[in-house]
Amino acid sequence: MIDQSTRPHSLTRSAHASPDVLQLKRLGIDTYREPVIFLARSSPVCRAEGWDAQSRVQVACKGRSIIATLNVTSDELLAVNEASLSETAWQLLGATDGDLVRLSHPAPVESLSHLRAKVYGETLGPSTIGAIVRDIVAGRYSDIDLAAFVTAFAAEHPDVSETTALARAMVTTGDRLYWGAAPVVDKHCVGGLPGNRTSMIVVPIVAACGLTIPKTSSRAITSPAGTADAMETIAPVDLDVAGIQRVVERERACIVWGGRVRLAPADDVIISVERPLDFDSPTQLVASILSKKAAAGSTHILIDVPVGATAKVRSARAADALEELFKAVASALRLELRILRTDGSQPVGRGVGPALEARDVLAVLRCEPQAPADLRIRALTLAGEALELGGTAAAGAGLARATETLESGAALRKLEAICRAQGGMREPLVAPLRHVVDATRAGRISGIDNRRLSRLAKLAGAPRAPSAGVELHVRLETTIAPGEPLLTIHAESPGELEYARAYLAANPDIIELDAR
Amino acid sequence: MIDQSTRPHSLTRSAHASPDVLQLKRLGIDTYREPVIFLARSSPVCRAEGWDAQSRVQVACKGRSIIATLNVTSDELLAVNEASLSETAWQLLGATDGDLVRLSHPAPVESLSHLRAKVYGETLGPSTIGAIVRDIVAGRYSDIDLAAFVTAFAAEHPDVSETTALARAMVTTGDRLYWGAAPVVDKHCVGGLPGNRTSMIVVPIVAACGLTIPKTSSRAITSPAGTADAMETIAPVDLDVAGIQRVVERERACIVWGGRVRLAPADDVIISVERPLDFDSPTQLVASILSKKAAAGSTHILIDVPVGATAKVRSARAADALEELFKAVASALRLELRILRTDGSQPVGRGVGPALEARDVLAVLRCEPQAPADLRIRALTLAGEALELGGTAAAGAGLARATETLESGAALRKLEAICRAQGGMREPLVAPLRHVVDATRAGRISGIDNRRLSRLAKLAGAPRAPSAGVELHVRLETTIAPGEPLLTIHAESPGELEYARAYLAANPDIIELDAR
Repeated sequence: MIDQSTRPHSLTRSAHASPDVLQLKRLGIDTYREPVIFLARSSPVCRAEGWDAQSRVQVACKGRSIIATLNVTSDELLAVNEASLSETAWQLLGATDGDLVRLSHPAPVESLSHLRAKVYGETLGPSTIGAIVRDIVAGRYSDIDLAAFVTAFAAEHPDVSETTALARAMVTTGDRLYWGAAPVVDKHCVGGLPGNRTSMIVVPIVAACGLTIPKTSSRAITSPAGTADAMETIAPVDLDVAGIQRVVERERACIVWGGRVRLAPADDVIISVERPLDFDSPTQLVASILSKKAAAGSTHILIDVPVGATAKVRSARAADALEELFKAVASALRLELRILRTDGSQPVGRGVGPALEARDVLAVLRCEPQAPADLRIRALTLAGEALELGGTAAAGAGLARATETLESGAALRKLEAICRAQGGMREPLVAPLRHVVDATRAGRISGIDNRRLSRLAKLAGAPRAPSAGVELHVRLETTIAPGEPLLTIHAESPGELEYARAYLAANPDIIELDAR
Repeated sequence: MIDQSTRPHSLTRSAHASPDVLQLKRLGIDTYREPVIFLARSSPVCRAEGWDAQSRVQVACKGRSIIATLNVTSDELLAVNEASLSETAWQLLGATDGDLVRLSHPAPVESLSHLRAKVYGETLGPSTIGAIVRDIVAGRYSDIDLAAFVTAFAAEHPDVSETTALARAMVTTGDRLYWGAAPVVDKHCVGGLPGNRTSMIVVPIVAACGLTIPKTSSRAITSPAGTADAMETIAPVDLDVAGIQRVVERERACIVWGGRVRLAPADDVIISVERPLDFDSPTQLVASILSKKAAAGSTHILIDVPVGATAKVRSARAADALEELFKAVASALRLELRILRTDGSQPVGRGVGPALEARDVLAVLRCEPQAPADLRIRALTLAGEALELGGTAAAGAGLARATETLESGAALRKLEAICRAQGGMREPLVAPLRHVVDATRAGRISGIDNRRLSRLAKLAGAPRAPSAGVELHVRLETTIAPGEPLLTIHAESPGELEYARAYLAANPDIIELDAR
């Protein structure tokens, strides 16, 4: 591509070596998701290709290639025939220190013109959406491009055909799991309700009743804990495909992190930008959930939709719209879907954060008297619906069957077996730093703000710090006297504890008290 | 904020020094606009604050503070008590090697919740838009936040009140210039028409006729050349406020880069993300142009809107909508506005690229016989409109007055005087590498694609390489024989020349030929 006869011979390498081939040197810089390539400012290839900071560069190494964003460095950091990569880029390329890379201009990313059309107000068809998703999976979209994509598809009244096309494209651009004969049951909560860790109870109940329920879960996106995070505090979740298949063969079920399976990989890329933006658009929500389930090989899906003023779905009207979108897309993907609307007015259980929620789960499964009753009944209701959806319980008989399975200890034994099959069961850790916050006046708990409570738990460190989060000591309608505990902040570091405390002090009405 | 009694004493500094205070070390990494802070992975403050790559960190130094994105590095690059910054961050903080910085969690950026509301479909009021713009100017928005902002406001049918609020907020969050009594004339082209470098002719004509026309211009956003880029090939444009005022006092006019004046600084931040996204939304366009003009102290503004299938404004309908938006916002900002729709079907002049366009301008001003006639008549028409808008020529008499001013040499002398006042006039450079592309068959030029021609010029290196770009040898309706030149690619580097050649080879229909 470059006319070598005009190139100055200022490099120390053999004149036969191409100047767009550089040697990698590890600098050890982690820039998170977006791959970055570092070149020295006076690198001849920079000048020759006309590259500048923020340019997009195609980097090829040992048969693989990625598009990276260029950061230029001073000449002290890198020699003119050297290049370095951000941590993500090293991994994507499978490259190591000393490898040679070839650099070139990337071909224009054609699907970005379709994205622009969408932004300007057009509706996109399945093939253009497919092209966008393929480019996303291939790593051709920068963080800025992804942010535009997320924003463009975040409108409140999404288009069903676009959402379906998005979900389909997200399935076909990744791997799939297959489990043999239907039904293969799955369950998902759309989120927004802190502590709603029902999967870890539903899965063992459903599996103990003979249905196949291989649950692959995400880590938390915008919440203080995802199912994978909570499960990981009691058992390994990071299994590869073969490992997952072994567990399910043995126990008919699993609760694992789906990340090693490359299910709907576009979802993870999109989420990496959705997360800092804190968006939760109906289109992305439905496409994300159904694409992951379809790719995971599920056929019968139960979706828990908590509805409440401070949950993710705020009203019956919003729930109607979301349900309609879910049903339309599920139908197009040939999935059986059942939606259960649940109460979203306050958190579920006591704990908000991976380990704290796992402790609530174990208390329920162990039928401990102090186990959170709300978590228990929600999990049983969902498990009952799942048993009916899967055809194991007759209509209306699911709840009783689920309750019997829990109270007999069969569900607990099943979870223990699943944990052992996944690599071993342990007790969840307890956070080293705990700060109890007491009520300063008497009253009746009249409101608990889910959104800000989640934020509090995240500031305390969840989910990155697995034992961090918030432990509630009250529920709606609880009566409390001054000096009695409202909640406990759990943290792994003093800085996070302090930041959570400061946030709570600035937001005392996260928990509202009516004088009594 | 941090409980120091629990902190390990592993740092070599005095125990009285706060652990969130680090010493800066220059690494020399340029990450373009978004400020980045580098910390060693095992830095105690990382652990204490719970920071990870991509975290947003408040960085304070000598009284200034910014929000930067964290990149973590290996321990070889930085010691645990050291930090480094990207080039932008060094500049924003006014920091130097060895300075101390204090790190903390930034307060939540409240206006982002308003941005989310906009994304979900709400219309925003002036005070919320003002809050967003203030946060943008203060550097609190990451590149991802900005991309979401740009996308959210890129809809094809924007809200007038939002656009007005945006323009107003962009004015009030920056500095302003004042020029005494109205009229203070200004001119702007919305772009999309390669080579349309009329300002450098209009300004000297209008100033020679006695009107004040202090033109501050941007550098190119998504085009191969902006007015500031082209002017810079013949005179300095990078003047500070005092310098600009001196020039205008002397010559009643200037053609400078507005960057030193901090006019509508939000615009430059927004543009830095609009540029890689290649968006040109009506809202941003109108808010950008009118805010810059209002901040520049202009009172009477002429806007050139080229309309054509491959220009930025594609149809009469689109021009109507844009004109309506311009008028409504200008009225709210108390600006006199006149819009001239011009032909957008093909590029103007011969050159596309800073130096090539400057050469066309000088040829017109010097009344050379080979000067591009289309550039000449367009500039005279616009100058005539400006003279009428400013009240110096009677209605309908502007064109004649402008023509007389050009043909007498007064306009040329005025431009020379302006250049001298700005620091000296020079001839534009000629590119070292030139590649002539000939027609391969006979025919009549029936189409020239402005968008792809601009792209070709950019691939050749414009505007970063000022002498690079494309020189056209044909216009619509030109008849051509095989072997006759269609265009010449100008480049400063072999790589850019090659990439432009490859693009043209893949897009031969940039220039369409009908057989004759």
